[in-house]
Amino acid sequence: MNFSAVDHGMMARALQLAERGLWTTSPNPRVGCVLVRDGEIIGEGWHEKAGEPHAEVHALRAAGEQARGATAYVTLEPCSHHGRTPPCAEALVAAGVSRVVAAMTDPNPLVAGKGLAILQAAGIETAAGLLENEARELNIGFVSRMTRGRPWLRLKAAASLDGKTALNNGASQWITGPDARRDGHAWRARACAILTGIGTVRDDDPQLLVRDVETTRQPLRVVVDSRLETPLSARVLQGGPVLIAGAVDDAEKAALLRSTGAEVLILPNAAGKVELKALLEALAQRGVNEVHAEAGFKLNGSLLREGLVDELLLYLAPCLIGHEASGLFNLPALTTLDDKHPLQIRDLRQVGADIRVVARPQ
Amino acid sequence: MNFSAVDHGMMARALQLAERGLWTTSPNPRVGCVLVRDGEIIGEGWHEKAGEPHAEVHALRAAGEQARGATAYVTLEPCSHHGRTPPCAEALVAAGVSRVVAAMTDPNPLVAGKGLAILQAAGIETAAGLLENEARELNIGFVSRMTRGRPWLRLKAAASLDGKTALNNGASQWITGPDARRDGHAWRARACAILTGIGTVRDDDPQLLVRDVETTRQPLRVVVDSRLETPLSARVLQGGPVLIAGAVDDAEKAALLRSTGAEVLILPNAAGKVELKALLEALAQRGVNEVHAEAGFKLNGSLLREGLVDELLLYLAPCLIGHEASGLFNLPALTTLDDKHPLQIRDLRQVGADIRVVARPQ
Repeated sequence: MNFSAVDHGMMARALQLAERGLWTTSPNPRVGCVLVRDGEIIGEGWHEKAGEPHAEVHALRAAGEQARGATAYVTLEPCSHHGRTPPCAEALVAAGVSRVVAAMTDPNPLVAGKGLAILQAAGIETAAGLLENEARELNIGFVSRMTRGRPWLRLKAAASLDGKTALNNGASQWITGPDARRDGHAWRARACAILTGIGTVRDDDPQLLVRDVETTRQPLRVVVDSRLETPLSARVLQGGPVLIAGAVDDAEKAALLRSTGAEVLILPNAAGKVELKALLEALAQRGVNEVHAEAGFKLNGSLLREGLVDELLLYLAPCLIGHEASGLFNLPALTTLDDKHPLQIRDLRQVGADIRVVARPQ
Repeated sequence: MNFSAVDHGMMARALQLAERGLWTTSPNPRVGCVLVRDGEIIGEGWHEKAGEPHAEVHALRAAGEQARGATAYVTLEPCSHHGRTPPCAEALVAAGVSRVVAAMTDPNPLVAGKGLAILQAAGIETAAGLLENEARELNIGFVSRMTRGRPWLRLKAAASLDGKTALNNGASQWITGPDARRDGHAWRARACAILTGIGTVRDDDPQLLVRDVETTRQPLRVVVDSRLETPLSARVLQGGPVLIAGAVDDAEKAALLRSTGAEVLILPNAAGKVELKALLEALAQRGVNEVHAEAGFKLNGSLLREGLVDELLLYLAPCLIGHEASGLFNLPALTTLDDKHPLQIRDLRQVGADIRVVARPQ
């Protein structure tokens, strides 16, 4: 399929619009739509949040009667099912558009292609795969949930240039500067859930809410806490929904935690710890697309060892702390460097005085 | 002093020329010269190596009779003393230039201003301080030696993204990729000496010569080896001049090391280790401007603790190794993060697949 320069430009615009929903659409994907007729943009739309109209509906409303004969550029195949809103494929047919270009087909294998089929059956020309990579990246969590049954897990960590996160006496906060912390909150804001461990709750007592950036939605906070030891006074138990993932079915402790409003989920593995993969699958079932992990070196190490880290968001502060301090990842001793965990760097920049690295395991 | 756009441009050109001597001029500074008359460049020159003509002489030769009435741009105040070559200040007077602009005065407090004074006494207009910061950076080692009596020490290290240099079984080589290694050799090439410790000699048996990039000069290799334990078969003892810095005056061991051609220097401190500051001062007395340290976490830690690290050249490989492995710096445990060693990042980029950070202690 060959796409014209106009096709590319309009899809890039649709992706820009989709990105406006970065912090709000979940559990839905971020989607944008542009309607073009006779070389003019006649309507634009983007999905803002679940239960509200999809991108196509906004764009069709903006275009009105002009939509007849137009080309619709959508960053995701129009939906074919009756959910909280009627199917967009039918709305496009009813509006009389003559061509629909989708960046990607629906990643849900149960419905992939069905939206395009509705359009084709109505005689509308369809095409898919334009800027598909960009579209997949934008909805990397939604794609992950649909294709792997678990969220995209982004592990955020901050360390000194020599890889130390904290002193051996536990002092750890404020290694990085205010710009990096604000940047970290923007990454939190796009996630559906923030994951941490009982060690971090005990040592740092974080609230794990999105601050420093304005958002209308707070992610679910999830604490990996095998023995249900989260103190009832922990700040994480305040300010919104919380899920405590335990491994021991201690009814009394669970009841106390539930009395604070927290959900308690018991997911033991054979070693008596929380089965992390099962926890991620449970989060996917709750509509969680992206998980933002901010934990200590034990949970970080477990997630990495079990192959559950999809992306590393690492802030390196311009300082040295030295050998005695706590490291980033609790990993078993390697006997050969061939066993190191290789990463691919996706982005490298300075954020304030700190260095930010975005990398993915290879 | 106001400088014109032409002044700025010509000094920038002179600095470009000076930089051609980056790998060769030591113990002399890198110096460039541009002669301009009636809006035309009539001569350019740069200093290539000690004992050969200075930048001004090359430029005056190129300009010939045209030098009369010209403006000379030099990146360092013209020399006033009879060394291996006659003083450049006198050569500029003899050639009849009418104006001399220097980026910086001579950093040697014993001769600073004397070259400009010779010019002024001959009725030549002089000015100094144009692109001075760039000129100082270019000769940061020479400036350090002249003003502090010790070389500029650049510590090179390579680690995984989590700050690990080696496994706990000692395996360490090839953490970074070929581009970073070649880049590291280019930094070695500009140094007058490469400094390492007995631990690295024992573990890695490096040769510590400049490879991968073409150079006409090999730096002095310096091994910090308190008990004179460098094996006589060590590769570092081959391929050029070597200095072994010890702390115990063991005449037999010293004689054996000297028999390989190495120089042995005994510089004990009160703790029976090598007095590192005294070693650096001894290197300055030998004309060493820049020291390139490539050592293990013990010597790295000592250099940092003693405030002798002027610059950090850190390569971070895109991989994770984990807590059990060796770190970058042996530093005492801190009790508060206020005691961390703060750095200022000067340069951040990717070199091949690796990250390169150039930073300086604040």
